[in-house]
Amino acid sequence: MALGEFELIRRFFERPARRALLGVGDDCALLAAPTGGRALAVTTDMLVCGRHFLADAPAETVGHKALAVNLSDLAAMGAAPVGFTLAVALPEVDEQWLAGFAAGMFALADETGCELLGGDTTRGPLTLSITAFGEVPPERALRRDRALAEDDLWVSGALGGAALAVREALAGRMLPIGHPARIRMERPHPRVSLGLALRPLACAAIDISDGLLADLGHLCERSGLGAEINWPSVPVDATLAGCTVTERQRLALAGGDDYELLFTARASQRHAIEALPLRLGVPVTRIGRMSAKVGLRVTDGAGRLLEPDQRGFDHFR
Amino acid sequence: MALGEFELIRRFFERPARRALLGVGDDCALLAAPTGGRALAVTTDMLVCGRHFLADAPAETVGHKALAVNLSDLAAMGAAPVGFTLAVALPEVDEQWLAGFAAGMFALADETGCELLGGDTTRGPLTLSITAFGEVPPERALRRDRALAEDDLWVSGALGGAALAVREALAGRMLPIGHPARIRMERPHPRVSLGLALRPLACAAIDISDGLLADLGHLCERSGLGAEINWPSVPVDATLAGCTVTERQRLALAGGDDYELLFTARASQRHAIEALPLRLGVPVTRIGRMSAKVGLRVTDGAGRLLEPDQRGFDHFR
Repeated sequence: MALGEFELIRRFFERPARRALLGVGDDCALLAAPTGGRALAVTTDMLVCGRHFLADAPAETVGHKALAVNLSDLAAMGAAPVGFTLAVALPEVDEQWLAGFAAGMFALADETGCELLGGDTTRGPLTLSITAFGEVPPERALRRDRALAEDDLWVSGALGGAALAVREALAGRMLPIGHPARIRMERPHPRVSLGLALRPLACAAIDISDGLLADLGHLCERSGLGAEINWPSVPVDATLAGCTVTERQRLALAGGDDYELLFTARASQRHAIEALPLRLGVPVTRIGRMSAKVGLRVTDGAGRLLEPDQRGFDHFR
Repeated sequence: MALGEFELIRRFFERPARRALLGVGDDCALLAAPTGGRALAVTTDMLVCGRHFLADAPAETVGHKALAVNLSDLAAMGAAPVGFTLAVALPEVDEQWLAGFAAGMFALADETGCELLGGDTTRGPLTLSITAFGEVPPERALRRDRALAEDDLWVSGALGGAALAVREALAGRMLPIGHPARIRMERPHPRVSLGLALRPLACAAIDISDGLLADLGHLCERSGLGAEINWPSVPVDATLAGCTVTERQRLALAGGDDYELLFTARASQRHAIEALPLRLGVPVTRIGRMSAKVGLRVTDGAGRLLEPDQRGFDHFR
C-alpha cells in the first residue's frame, strides 16, 4: 500500500527538535530569536528535476545538493546555519528514493549544525524548495554591496569542475560515480566555516552559482564598481587538465555550479586571509582586484586583455 | 525579447526593504531578531499548477492564494506576519501573468504587514513555494498539542464553500468569477487578526486546509484527545443551501480548502470569544468539545451519532 502524506512525513522527515522550540508537525515551527544583536539571514533556492539535477542522479546527492546550495548562500553572507524548511513535490511515493534523499540532506544538516524545521509535501513534477536560516551580526554580514575600490579579489577552492561534469552529462557522456568532477557537480560543499572566518576580514562576498564572471558582475553592480581578474591566478580545477585553454577559460570563468566563495578584502588583510587555508582546510586564492572603473576585465600574465565568454547561467535565456 | 532571470526579479519582485535590514538582491535577506522574548514562527507551503490551482485561474488569485495559505498557518499559530520568501518555477516568462501574480501577492502582503524578503526564479513546471515568517511569544503560541479535555471547540467563518467550488470545477462546471464559492476557493482570507486575538484565549488551534474532521484529527492526535462535534452547530457556507444534507455534511466536514481557524478554549473564555466577531468582523461558532475519549464523534441535534465520510485530503491517497 502506498504511504499517505502524513505517514511519509513522519517516516522520512520528522526528527526530534533539538534547537527549535517546536519542530516538524504543527502549523509552524518555532525558533528562538537570535541573541546578542545578531540578525536572521534567510535564503531560498528551488531545484527542478531535469534542470538542477538529472532524473537518475543518486537520491542521496539530490538531498545533499538541495540543502548545500542554500547553505552556500548563508556562507556567502557569513551566517551560521540554524535551520531550514523543505517543500517537495513528488510525482509518486518512491520510498527508496525518499530514504536516500533524506539521508543525503540530513547528513549535511548534521555536519553543519542546522535542523529541518518544517515542510510541505505534495504531488507534482519533482521539485524541491528549501529555505534556510542563519544568524549573523548585521554589521559583519558579507553583503554584495560592500566592496571597495582597490579591494583584493579572492576565490575559494578551484573552479570549473562542476561545469565540466555538466557539459559531459549534457553530451551524453556522464562521468562515472566517484569522478572528481562529478562529485563537484553532485555534491558541492558549502563553504560555511570560511564564511564565518571571513566576517572580520572580508568587505563583500557572493557564492559562485552562475559562474565567476556572472557572479562577480552581480557583486560589482551592487557595489557600483568594476573588477580586474588576472587569469593565470585563477585556480582551475585539476579535472580540466586535459581541456584546451579556451575550454578551461570558459568552464572556470563562466561555468558556474561550483558554489565556491568569491570575496573582496582590503590589502591589509592579506596575511590574515592567507592563514585561513591551514586553519580551515579550504584553499583561497587572490585572483585580482576591485576597481572604480566599471566593467570586468580579464588579463593574461603579460597584462593583455582577454575576451572570454562572460555570460553566466540565466534560467530564462 | 524575453526577459532574463535577473531583469524578471527586478521588474516584478524587487521592492525597497521596509522592515528587513536587507531585502531582495543579495545572497540572503537580513531580518532583525524578534524582541521581547518573542520567537520566530516559520511555515512553508508549495502550490503546484493543476493541483492547488487551475492553469487558467486568474494570475492575481494565484498570487493571493500562494501567500494566503502560508499566512493561514501563521494565524493558526497566533503569529504576527513579518515577511516571506518566494521560490517559483515558470515554464516561460509571461509578463502579463507575472504582473497579475505579483499584484495579488503584494496586495495581501501589504494588507497583512509582511514583506517579500527574497526568492528564487527558475524554469520548470509552474510551481510556487512560499516560506513565511512571523513573531509570537512562544508561551502564547497556539500549538496543536495544547488542547485540554472538556475544552470548547470553535471554528471561524463558514465551511464548505471552497470545496463546493472545487467540486464544480473538477466536474467541468467552473463557477463564474465573483460567485461566492469561487471566491472562497481562489481567494481564501487568512484569519491573521483572529489568530492574534486568540493568543490569550485559546488553548490550541489549527487551520482547516484538509477538511474539518481531518484537521481536527491532527489536533486530537497531537493533544492525545478525542472530540465531539454537534453537526447542527457547524456553520455551513450559504452557497451550500441547494445541496442535500449528505452533500452539505461531506463538503463542510471533509471538504477542506476553507482556511478557517479551528481552535479550542476553556469554557471560562466563552464570553471573551463571543465578543470577538464584533471587534474583528470574523464570525466564530462553538461547534463541540474536546474529550478524553479518543476518536471523533459527530452527533445530530438529538444526540444521535452520525457517520460522515471522515477522510480529509491527502496528496498521496
